[in-house]
Amino acid sequence: MTLPEMNVLGKVKMKNNQYIVVVGCGRVGSHVANQLSRDGNSVVVIDSDGTKFNDLSPDFSGFRIEGDATHIAVLKEAKLKKADVLIATTHEDNVNVMVAQIAQKMFNVPHVLARVFDPKREAVYTQLGIDTICPTSVAAGMFLQAVSNNAGLHERVDS
Amino acid sequence: MTLPEMNVLGKVKMKNNQYIVVVGCGRVGSHVANQLSRDGNSVVVIDSDGTKFNDLSPDFSGFRIEGDATHIAVLKEAKLKKADVLIATTHEDNVNVMVAQIAQKMFNVPHVLARVFDPKREAVYTQLGIDTICPTSVAAGMFLQAVSNNAGLHERVDS
Repeated sequence: MTLPEMNVLGKVKMKNNQYIVVVGCGRVGSHVANQLSRDGNSVVVIDSDGTKFNDLSPDFSGFRIEGDATHIAVLKEAKLKKADVLIATTHEDNVNVMVAQIAQKMFNVPHVLARVFDPKREAVYTQLGIDTICPTSVAAGMFLQAVSNNAGLHERVDS
Repeated sequence: MTLPEMNVLGKVKMKNNQYIVVVGCGRVGSHVANQLSRDGNSVVVIDSDGTKFNDLSPDFSGFRIEGDATHIAVLKEAKLKKADVLIATTHEDNVNVMVAQIAQKMFNVPHVLARVFDPKREAVYTQLGIDTICPTSVAAGMFLQAVSNNAGLHERVDS
């Protein structure tokens, strides 16, 4: 899977430098943090497991905070009040949504994004004003699309 | 996240009935199996944990096999030789790729799809002829796209 979306960031780099807090430094969090830092944004990454920061690339120029992002003190340390964007990418839906709500209600972060694995919860969170990304729905949709394309292919061969 | 891709399957239903084996009945596997069954395909779902079949909808008309899909006997029981498509959706990259390779090399399944969480492995698997879907890359790309869109929004407000 290529990521054409990333190229779009080239434009962002030219336009402005955002202050972005990324919660969770797993595969998705570290990838996002690396790319956003590379594109000239100010990035802070928070993870409760400090070894996760090993996934950050050598040229990552942001800050690392080891701590529980559902604790207000940790979010204050990350200067969340200054943030333009918060991205919650941990593997726990509850943590992501809790952090997203704290960011929105207590720190007035204008743009809050959360990864949500359970598609059933997605609609509720959207109503709460949190932009959600659901890899489960996306993966399922991609599989179904691939099967659909395959069926079309078979039809061409058979006819 | 809506799944516009699924609507495309309406067409598939009209065109042909495929024999599809889905390995793993977690959120993605059960969602895909339910939809494919609903659309008139013959579906077999395999999971080593029989309780996972509870996620299948009441109108799921396919078969359930409790067993380890890396065992040839289990795949034979699923009549994999007849399959048009195999979809490997477990949470283990190694399992998905092993099942995908067995399906391709030993059972000559014409279309093999596997979920792969580690983006670094994706290129290798593609070279092996396995269509991969990487939710990690997709989620990262969507977050970056959302941040990019947000930057554009800020610019409009400021100007």
